Amino acid sequence: MPVPVHYSEKALRTHDQPITYFMQQAIENPDLISLAAGLVDPWSLPAEEVRGAFAQILSEPERAYAALQYGTTKGYAPLRQKLLDRLCKLDGIADPADISLTPLDVVVTTGSQQLLYLVSELLLDPGDLVITEAPAYFVYQGTLDSMGARTLSVPMDENGMQTDLLEELLDRLEHTGEIGKLRLIYVCDYFQNPTGLNLSLERRQHLLELVKRYSRDHRILILEDSAYRELRYAGEDIPSIKSLDKTNEFVILAMTFSKPCAPGLKTGYGFLPHELVGPLLRLKGNHDFGSNNLTQHLLDHLLETGAYDSHVEQLRKVYRKKLDALLEALENEFGGSDIQWTHPDGGLYVWVTFPPGLETGPDSPLMKAALEEGVLYVPGQFCYVDDENGVRTNEARLSFGVVPLEQIGEAVRRLAKAVEACTGRIAKATSQSTARC
Amino acid sequence: MPVPVHYSEKALRTHDQPITYFMQQAIENPDLISLAAGLVDPWSLPAEEVRGAFAQILSEPERAYAALQYGTTKGYAPLRQKLLDRLCKLDGIADPADISLTPLDVVVTTGSQQLLYLVSELLLDPGDLVITEAPAYFVYQGTLDSMGARTLSVPMDENGMQTDLLEELLDRLEHTGEIGKLRLIYVCDYFQNPTGLNLSLERRQHLLELVKRYSRDHRILILEDSAYRELRYAGEDIPSIKSLDKTNEFVILAMTFSKPCAPGLKTGYGFLPHELVGPLLRLKGNHDFGSNNLTQHLLDHLLETGAYDSHVEQLRKVYRKKLDALLEALENEFGGSDIQWTHPDGGLYVWVTFPPGLETGPDSPLMKAALEEGVLYVPGQFCYVDDENGVRTNEARLSFGVVPLEQIGEAVRRLAKAVEACTGRIAKATSQSTARC
Repeated sequence: MPVPVHYSEKALRTHDQPITYFMQQAIENPDLISLAAGLVDPWSLPAEEVRGAFAQILSEPERAYAALQYGTTKGYAPLRQKLLDRLCKLDGIADPADISLTPLDVVVTTGSQQLLYLVSELLLDPGDLVITEAPAYFVYQGTLDSMGARTLSVPMDENGMQTDLLEELLDRLEHTGEIGKLRLIYVCDYFQNPTGLNLSLERRQHLLELVKRYSRDHRILILEDSAYRELRYAGEDIPSIKSLDKTNEFVILAMTFSKPCAPGLKTGYGFLPHELVGPLLRLKGNHDFGSNNLTQHLLDHLLETGAYDSHVEQLRKVYRKKLDALLEALENEFGGSDIQWTHPDGGLYVWVTFPPGLETGPDSPLMKAALEEGVLYVPGQFCYVDDENGVRTNEARLSFGVVPLEQIGEAVRRLAKAVEACTGRIAKATSQSTARC
Repeated sequence: MPVPVHYSEKALRTHDQPITYFMQQAIENPDLISLAAGLVDPWSLPAEEVRGAFAQILSEPERAYAALQYGTTKGYAPLRQKLLDRLCKLDGIADPADISLTPLDVVVTTGSQQLLYLVSELLLDPGDLVITEAPAYFVYQGTLDSMGARTLSVPMDENGMQTDLLEELLDRLEHTGEIGKLRLIYVCDYFQNPTGLNLSLERRQHLLELVKRYSRDHRILILEDSAYRELRYAGEDIPSIKSLDKTNEFVILAMTFSKPCAPGLKTGYGFLPHELVGPLLRLKGNHDFGSNNLTQHLLDHLLETGAYDSHVEQLRKVYRKKLDALLEALENEFGGSDIQWTHPDGGLYVWVTFPPGLETGPDSPLMKAALEEGVLYVPGQFCYVDDENGVRTNEARLSFGVVPLEQIGEAVRRLAKAVEACTGRIAKATSQSTARC
């Protein structure tokens, strides 16, 4: 009998991602069509561009040695400059000084996930408060739980987090004194994971105004996760909250190359209020003293040659078709029914709301029926915290990232069959007054 | 006046690495020869091998898509299998089952630093105890401080940590009851950073026997950092402590591709007691859900084709010459004096002990004189914790990694001039009975 290991408090608070089970299902059953996986379209990955860039970089000795040597904790300076220029271009900012940013406020991380982690580690002690959207990105919820933070959520509508409800919440927290524990408001504000919805410009302005107003004794920070911003297939871009924060005080902006370029490069980046950079880099120094340097040189080259831009443009065409196919299939199968879904202009997700009582959870009849039919979705309940707003159990996230275009129709047909089977069972069960679906 | 940011307890405990100042010196003064930097030899970096491997991997669509897509948190399975095979080969183990290891006990990380971080996060709460060597790898000390752990050190001699003194310490901790707080014993056991010394086989056995004996109510783990193992230029390899731990219960082994291959790839790996793997991966899931996948495919290819092995063989020749040059230069400049230094058989470091009173600290006359002469070293005091063993202030770490072979003699000549200048000042100061050097 081995002597027991004594784990840290944090380790004991850290749980498996709920998605793990579904990833495993997809691996074990290759006939399953996964509308659950957050993977990207494999056939659009920039293999040729990356090969060409490496051939170039690695055939110039000085450049090759610089790329294969240690880099800095903050990241490759020319890349950080380009990332800042790029953000300014996206936001229509003529001069980075207009939003009080310099390349020294840009940090390159091991995917944007590492930035989310470092920011949480920088700001949160057990018992501290964080506000998220309801529903929210469930992987980040796992990180918050691991930190021992308490999460409060604010319901969304088609314009994102309802900032009037946020205002009420902040007001209540101020009255109870709990606002002294509030560190962070997290929003995934472009084509949100999981709903595909945007936070409107008006709400962005309101959100920023609120954190300014309620930051009395200490600063409440906005963690703006814009992982999907560049994947817009229709409509006009919206300025980042970061670009509205002219003094660079209240917003940490997280972005990534995983979605618009390639997840295998595991490179993200952040724009931070200047005074946070040093403390964050001290933590990152202990994590890894800098992310993969070779990949940073690669990305710098892809940005420089324009290969990145052409790739993103190409990718938008691919995903636009897939999104259209998914929305069309949903209309074909569920149009006119009491099943509803979001109609995003970008990103990788569509959020489906089934009628109340049609449960989507991991042990629900619908999930069982879906697996029998050979289709997988993410149960919506993973995206909620059990606060006063409650956990909704009749929703689902559908992702069209990894599914081949020609399988999307079939995937939704299978889902419709599962719903049909399950609804039939409901009727049957109801007549026997026993089970719920 | 901006509203103040409320940082976490951990952020407040996390300090700048002492080495930062020295890195900055080296960047600002290009004429300086840096015997301080922990960088590797740039001209030996495997640019051609990496270019060839990428050309291959990225021209096969299936393989390219797999490498550019998300990987798993644990790491690329074929790579983990090869890493296990490689460890067994190094340790002369015929079957991994003989040391109770399978590829599921192998984890790929963002450099071995990330593994050190994750292990610390997994096991340590503020106030917990860790035992290290005196002197020890100072970067890891920063991580331990950040975790709020208390570090106790055990003096080394030419055979590494003095395990008889460790036994006395464990005995004392058992008597005071503090052993209940002891989680980890950290050893860098091959060509140690900073001394270049090995932990002898006899001491490895003793160390393992001690953690077994003192693991009564909870398990005390050994964190074996073998970053430099493959950089042996003379003598016989020593089995890892991991390979002595037949039941795979007490040892976490950390290794890396940074030193024997390329730091820019930022890829390390660990071998863990099986029950620790899940909890550690849950933490890593929150950090990044997996390290750079493309680089893992690259390394798998370099191992498969034998390019990695030929590279390491080539690298050993380069470093052997540099080590010989450094030892020869030290003999030329300091031979017969009261200055002593280690004579490593591998790694990247030589440890110099100056006579008592000849201080090496960042504000010492020797450091000032060295900077004036144009040479940089790492002050030995950074490698000590202020415990009962005290901080030694008359030592220095010299690294020959990044210095060109033909500059090594000059670097040591400059150091000798600095010592001479400084010793002169001592003599002068002594006659006036004021300053110490």
